[in-house]
Amino acid sequence: MEGLRSGYLFPEISIREHEHIQKNPNARLIRLGIGDTTQPIPDIITTAMAEHADALSTTRGYRGYGAEQGNMELRMAIAETLYRGTGVKGSEIFVSDGAQCDISRLQMLLGSNVKVAVQDPSFPAYIDTSVIVGQSGKLEEKTGKYSDIVYMNCGAENNFFPDLSTTPRTDVIFFCSPNNPTGSAASWKQLKQLVDFAKTNGSIIVYDSAYAAYISDESPRSIFEIPGAKEVAIEISSFSKFAGFTGVRLGWTVVPEELKYSNGFPVIEDFNRIVCTCFNGASNIVQAGGLACLSRDGYQAVCNVVDYYKENAKILVEAFASLGLKVYGGKNAPYVWVHFPGMSSWNVFNEILEKTHVVTVPGRGFGPGGEEYIRVSAFSHRENMMEASLRMKKLFR
Amino acid sequence: MEGLRSGYLFPEISIREHEHIQKNPNARLIRLGIGDTTQPIPDIITTAMAEHADALSTTRGYRGYGAEQGNMELRMAIAETLYRGTGVKGSEIFVSDGAQCDISRLQMLLGSNVKVAVQDPSFPAYIDTSVIVGQSGKLEEKTGKYSDIVYMNCGAENNFFPDLSTTPRTDVIFFCSPNNPTGSAASWKQLKQLVDFAKTNGSIIVYDSAYAAYISDESPRSIFEIPGAKEVAIEISSFSKFAGFTGVRLGWTVVPEELKYSNGFPVIEDFNRIVCTCFNGASNIVQAGGLACLSRDGYQAVCNVVDYYKENAKILVEAFASLGLKVYGGKNAPYVWVHFPGMSSWNVFNEILEKTHVVTVPGRGFGPGGEEYIRVSAFSHRENMMEASLRMKKLFR
Repeated sequence: MEGLRSGYLFPEISIREHEHIQKNPNARLIRLGIGDTTQPIPDIITTAMAEHADALSTTRGYRGYGAEQGNMELRMAIAETLYRGTGVKGSEIFVSDGAQCDISRLQMLLGSNVKVAVQDPSFPAYIDTSVIVGQSGKLEEKTGKYSDIVYMNCGAENNFFPDLSTTPRTDVIFFCSPNNPTGSAASWKQLKQLVDFAKTNGSIIVYDSAYAAYISDESPRSIFEIPGAKEVAIEISSFSKFAGFTGVRLGWTVVPEELKYSNGFPVIEDFNRIVCTCFNGASNIVQAGGLACLSRDGYQAVCNVVDYYKENAKILVEAFASLGLKVYGGKNAPYVWVHFPGMSSWNVFNEILEKTHVVTVPGRGFGPGGEEYIRVSAFSHRENMMEASLRMKKLFR
Repeated sequence: MEGLRSGYLFPEISIREHEHIQKNPNARLIRLGIGDTTQPIPDIITTAMAEHADALSTTRGYRGYGAEQGNMELRMAIAETLYRGTGVKGSEIFVSDGAQCDISRLQMLLGSNVKVAVQDPSFPAYIDTSVIVGQSGKLEEKTGKYSDIVYMNCGAENNFFPDLSTTPRTDVIFFCSPNNPTGSAASWKQLKQLVDFAKTNGSIIVYDSAYAAYISDESPRSIFEIPGAKEVAIEISSFSKFAGFTGVRLGWTVVPEELKYSNGFPVIEDFNRIVCTCFNGASNIVQAGGLACLSRDGYQAVCNVVDYYKENAKILVEAFASLGLKVYGGKNAPYVWVHFPGMSSWNVFNEILEKTHVVTVPGRGFGPGGEEYIRVSAFSHRENMMEASLRMKKLFR
């Protein structure tokens, strides 16, 4: 625990935001920092949850413990709706209370004796949980990296995909696509390379597809679209950004039967044991909501909300591009990744906050590879997007 | 992971139950095994959850991420309703998705370099999570115990409280009261001994009070009723058995500010970091239900359901006692702990299942100290209690 730096990135930003409000009580703050959904959940989904909750007060509708792995109906619906054609079965899907929680459960499974690789920059939870379970060495002040963790650089110069020819072998590769924070989605060809790399090295890929619903082009929405991926990959995903469930809490993890340790033992059996021992299933009310998200009308309604955020992202991309800045992401992800060459990302973050009252995230918070960048979230109301764009144009023009 | 035995106890029992149904398709099975609540949740509580769910479809009522530690209103209500007079503050309460989940998060915090003690018998999750994070040595076939874990024997001969004068020092002591499975609640005097023991040894007590609502006598409902406990104890608890939330999922953990490592660093800061990194808060819908449980009318309604189960427990105690068997528990807990001297608990379990179609839990599943016992759960409908009692009387008379 001592090895972890001062704070977790997002609570840290909340603190700075809070201080800013104290100093500027009359400013109209726009929060494009923490990627938190803002649009109401379609009522076909909330009604399903409300009805499930109401039924719990009846003898007929009351339910106690459910299966730790989730209701089979929901597991089947996830497989059929989101993994059609990939061969992923309902029995390989473990429903959870969110992707972040499953990352730490996976880390409990992996333990301290494995070596991990992460994209740099990337979502901080991979590295932070690695440090907690003892997979890393010390934080090196000079580089800002933990020893014993492999940082796979993903910058504009390599099109946000790591150079695997120079990447050392690790037991585990955390890979997030569409990437948080860069907003970049790996192509089929790139993911094929990654799967082949893992296969050659006997590595397990932990693939985070929490933003898959935002993909607009031909990029795969799941690692399991790649042939052979079931032998090397686990996929973590979530209803948070897909259906506005950030506060409602629902996610899932796919552990394919084909994935085995070098001794031939199936990983799914160990993960099942972790889920039964360290978790007791996602809330039954919330699972009813998840099922409604995957109904025909629910799915359409949820996709409409995703489209709304994607339109927001387009507005942000246009605003920053019009200022002559290099802008990445936004097309396949609700995040826009803006380059400020030669500048410190915390300085950019502070300047934007002070002068425009817009909260962003300094890229440095996602790893050394995020320096010179800021992440801007498209999760907000449309009028905030327009207003934030105006303020940026005034500041940087 | 390899160090864990075949399966987790409760899924194991489900499998045996399933096999029994296959063989006896017409038998009317009564499930008094897994301690799973059966009575509807009072509608003042389900209505609060349904209203919260409905509001999420409105611009005004929508909420995204909440605080990882839980809504402060709920944290305050837990402190004021359940910890009145103990000095526990809302800021020391971390709301979670259940006690079992918090046990594993605590184990992530503790890591592999600590030595733990557990009551024998006890709820299997303490030992199983210890094995997962690497605190234990191998399972010794002869004793049925893991090396490097201290088993504190709690049997009828010591009134289900360990002999601390012969208990070796450990870094952590898992202690569950009212105990699952024995149903025994430690007295004030016993808990004072435990706190003093921990203080002398510099140990942390992880106190599981998930069944506190079932206490009928003067036994403390929280370790924090003992002076000085805030310097040595963490308390884990849950809405599962208190409010029928087994499938709804809500719990909490108290980490007092006064609890410090030997180097003076407050444990609460590390636990907060774990919660922010490995967890994303309990479902906001469910938290609204928790708050309703602690309202004046909600609390009364929930207590009425607890009383119903306590009446069930009384029926079970009387039934087994009338057969001349030694029966423990049932007064301060929803579990009855029945002694079958000289017999194997799995044999007793199997015999009862085969001949009466009643599912119980073999005491051996809770550790070597549970041999010769079975646990019978009072969580069921009244008519099942009456029927199970009748069948037992026929079998053992």
